[in-house]
Amino acid sequence: MASRKHATAEEMARAQKEISVSEFFAKNRHLLGFDNPRKALLTTIKEAVDNSLDACEEAGILPEISVTIEQIEDDRFRVVVEDNGPGIVRAQIPNIFGKLLYGSKFHSRRQSRGQQGIGISAAGLYGQMTTGKGPRIESRTRRGKAHRYEIQMDFTKNKPLITLDQELDDWPRPHGTTFAVTLEASYQRGLRSVDDYIKQTAVANPHAEIRYQPPGSDEPRVYPRAVKEVPERPAEIKPHPYGVELGELMKMLRDTRCRWLSSFLQEEFCRVGPKVAREIIAAAGLGERSYPTRIAREEADRLYRAIQKTRISAPPTTCLSPIGEERIREGLMKECDADFYSVATRPPAVYRGNPFQIEVGIAWGKPGEERLEVDQRGRIRKTKRKRTTDTEDLLGAADEPVRVLRFANRVPLLFQQSSCAFTKAVIQTSWKNYGLSQARGALPTGSAVILVHMASVWVPFTSEAKEAIAPYPEIMKEVKLALQEAGRRLGAHIRKGKRVASEYQKRNYIEKYLPHVGVGLQEILGFDDEEREETVEALRESMEAARKI
Amino acid sequence: MASRKHATAEEMARAQKEISVSEFFAKNRHLLGFDNPRKALLTTIKEAVDNSLDACEEAGILPEISVTIEQIEDDRFRVVVEDNGPGIVRAQIPNIFGKLLYGSKFHSRRQSRGQQGIGISAAGLYGQMTTGKGPRIESRTRRGKAHRYEIQMDFTKNKPLITLDQELDDWPRPHGTTFAVTLEASYQRGLRSVDDYIKQTAVANPHAEIRYQPPGSDEPRVYPRAVKEVPERPAEIKPHPYGVELGELMKMLRDTRCRWLSSFLQEEFCRVGPKVAREIIAAAGLGERSYPTRIAREEADRLYRAIQKTRISAPPTTCLSPIGEERIREGLMKECDADFYSVATRPPAVYRGNPFQIEVGIAWGKPGEERLEVDQRGRIRKTKRKRTTDTEDLLGAADEPVRVLRFANRVPLLFQQSSCAFTKAVIQTSWKNYGLSQARGALPTGSAVILVHMASVWVPFTSEAKEAIAPYPEIMKEVKLALQEAGRRLGAHIRKGKRVASEYQKRNYIEKYLPHVGVGLQEILGFDDEEREETVEALRESMEAARKI
Repeated sequence: MASRKHATAEEMARAQKEISVSEFFAKNRHLLGFDNPRKALLTTIKEAVDNSLDACEEAGILPEISVTIEQIEDDRFRVVVEDNGPGIVRAQIPNIFGKLLYGSKFHSRRQSRGQQGIGISAAGLYGQMTTGKGPRIESRTRRGKAHRYEIQMDFTKNKPLITLDQELDDWPRPHGTTFAVTLEASYQRGLRSVDDYIKQTAVANPHAEIRYQPPGSDEPRVYPRAVKEVPERPAEIKPHPYGVELGELMKMLRDTRCRWLSSFLQEEFCRVGPKVAREIIAAAGLGERSYPTRIAREEADRLYRAIQKTRISAPPTTCLSPIGEERIREGLMKECDADFYSVATRPPAVYRGNPFQIEVGIAWGKPGEERLEVDQRGRIRKTKRKRTTDTEDLLGAADEPVRVLRFANRVPLLFQQSSCAFTKAVIQTSWKNYGLSQARGALPTGSAVILVHMASVWVPFTSEAKEAIAPYPEIMKEVKLALQEAGRRLGAHIRKGKRVASEYQKRNYIEKYLPHVGVGLQEILGFDDEEREETVEALRESMEAARKI
Repeated sequence: MASRKHATAEEMARAQKEISVSEFFAKNRHLLGFDNPRKALLTTIKEAVDNSLDACEEAGILPEISVTIEQIEDDRFRVVVEDNGPGIVRAQIPNIFGKLLYGSKFHSRRQSRGQQGIGISAAGLYGQMTTGKGPRIESRTRRGKAHRYEIQMDFTKNKPLITLDQELDDWPRPHGTTFAVTLEASYQRGLRSVDDYIKQTAVANPHAEIRYQPPGSDEPRVYPRAVKEVPERPAEIKPHPYGVELGELMKMLRDTRCRWLSSFLQEEFCRVGPKVAREIIAAAGLGERSYPTRIAREEADRLYRAIQKTRISAPPTTCLSPIGEERIREGLMKECDADFYSVATRPPAVYRGNPFQIEVGIAWGKPGEERLEVDQRGRIRKTKRKRTTDTEDLLGAADEPVRVLRFANRVPLLFQQSSCAFTKAVIQTSWKNYGLSQARGALPTGSAVILVHMASVWVPFTSEAKEAIAPYPEIMKEVKLALQEAGRRLGAHIRKGKRVASEYQKRNYIEKYLPHVGVGLQEILGFDDEEREETVEALRESMEAARKI
């Protein structure tokens, strides 16, 4: 057979050619979170909502986002995500939605949900591959009219083809974007579902109002806004010298407009002033007035080594937008009807030159279970607290592993839990110290939810699908410290609860035995029944007083 | 601060731009297996050796590959990989080594080690990023002279820059390629090391001769060739109708040169003859003489649905090149000095239209431990088998988890073991049935090695680093069936061993008590010493004969 004969180098050369990034990801779409129909639905919505939230925050707008899923055939769904964001300039629409690796966030050193310029176009591509239909986008900016585009992606060229281009005279919102796509999917409730994602997004984004209409429902579920300020827009920072590799440094030297090495270091990096620049240059044995563009590899290598040896302060953290302790507590209270909440925030830290900050929240103790409370008069009561919310609660049963809610730049991470740095850090923390039981190498058990958030200018995800955080040692360390801090408070609370319980038991004994004591006293001292009752009551009161908590 | 103010849609548009695939992977290099210096060394060598083996096989050459690692600074190493392959045509060298997503294997439906066109250029890029030096390539084809290139990658454009271009009059081999790169790395022995990779590559590629010189050694270790034939070159196949999605089908309809729908189906797909084509077209309610290029989305959708409903035979398997039972056994024997080997091969199967085939090998029982053997005369002997190889053995201790060797298209997979379909399949097999102990949800324990190989035209890896196989149900099923088959034979062997052991114990009793019986008989029957000895010997023989195995 012809196809089986051996090939020469020349024959092989004819087959060697460029592969487009969209062909690559179309064939490897599980890398982007489109492994199966269920996950495809989630990933599509996640990418669209992330973009909407990012755009609103960049423009200083309080987000109002609506997500609608409609089942149109057995295995096909239509997803529509609408926002009140700033809108997208007309000329950019086709590329943003029809070209992989196109966006504004990859090069910016500023916290955002998106960072790759892949997600939303991948959702459109997936829709097109599975149903033949490309996405429809409508958008209106403050200045312009609304436009409607329908696009198809030429995936052998990674280019959008515009199949519909309309100006819309009548559009319901003053500004905003609507993304709609038809895709092969399946819809299920429960863990790692779209419902779950929306709920967790509401927890981490209390400033957003989200309306969510799953298939088959008549009315949208509304997640109301809990906070009325848009999070402050993070500042963009310059690269920190410690985070730049030799290859990148060489490129920066070639590309800079600075004429002198000293100004190059001060202009292109953060945290380098005249003194630090002098130190670096001296350690590298170079001249402050060297021309950056003429620095050869060997000299650049010396400069690189000198940077590593010089003491440079940590990058500024104005590029970060943590959720904040109060908002984490409010978010948890909204979705977990717990007995106790504990929140901890670490100071910002750095990995590979990237600033990041870890926040942790714990909700503990489930409603509907019996528990003991001390009232204002110091008396212990056995109560059964009722559920106070009507939404599904995130808290699990007391004999189940705790639920870990993972967030990166306010985006919930639903898959790949076991390979995530956050889960590893929870497992490696000794929860027995904090009142939860825990088997070796496992998550602690208890009716608790542990929330971990990482805010960073660059989140090191383990895959393009952005499902788990790579376990960099610096990140692991910060997460563990935050967990310990929140855990200590939880432990104090649980121990106090145990004390109350043991008091309750003591009181039970008193209640049980005092009448017998009364009968004994009656016999010995010849009390009548009234005297016996009075004595017993007096004893009870004095013992209660002695035992007070 | 200016950078903090809110942005308008127009300001945001100015930041929206294309991201080059090499910038993307430079920033996300852990996706490609360059997470840390140790893994970077392994990944670099793996990509180069995979390419060499592929090229040799394509050209029908018995591979001779040499790998040298030299430590040049504390954290910098030079890697040189040489092969006797067909060489690379001069004009293609810069792109193959200096451009991500460039290659010949992505579009071919034929089994090969490489499939993405990313690996070797990523190794060059990593070298450049960490040491400033790009790769050096020397190559010579049968027809041409040898050439030497040094390149740097312009990673904002994903394009190679040629920094050295020489014709070499004197080159040691008639044809072949040498790839050399300097990179930040660290070298360690042990599991998941380069040593480990080379050894396992030798197991799965017994037709290759590999010379390997780790840092600090004077002489290369030689892994000699065990088989003298190059594996037959797999044939290239057309796509199978079941494996093509609607979006791709629409593109094929647009791009085809066939004038009629019927010929389109027969020409562009495998396993579609006139009868099947008629069936599909009828089920779709289309005409056989429809023009493919004029088929609209709705009609294409009907065609797609009709394909799913039509019975089409499985794709041909000439595109596969399994290792083969004999070679797996030989490979295992070369590297595991075991008591028993069991090998099983499944017939080819299909996932998402891609043919694949699973092979499994088990090596069991460690030398240096006491064991019982039955000799040719049926006698049981206690022996302690000596090690027969001087290389480090792959077999572990009897109380450790078995070692799982995972291979995809003859390439060892060293990382992400727990998320790999192969590991999951081993864990989900009941090894207690086959004589190994196993805790729930864990690998079995025992002095055993389990090898699993998947040969396929397209391996669904869980990441670009190609470290683990995605658990497609069809793949899981085939791996489990193969494990069961090999496991049953292992079980029979282990049970036989247990029988021998129990016989040995019985014989021990005989040996121990017969002399006493002799003494008793002597007393009762008045034997002299010689008579007693003779009687004991006769008894021993008759009992041995009665007990024979």
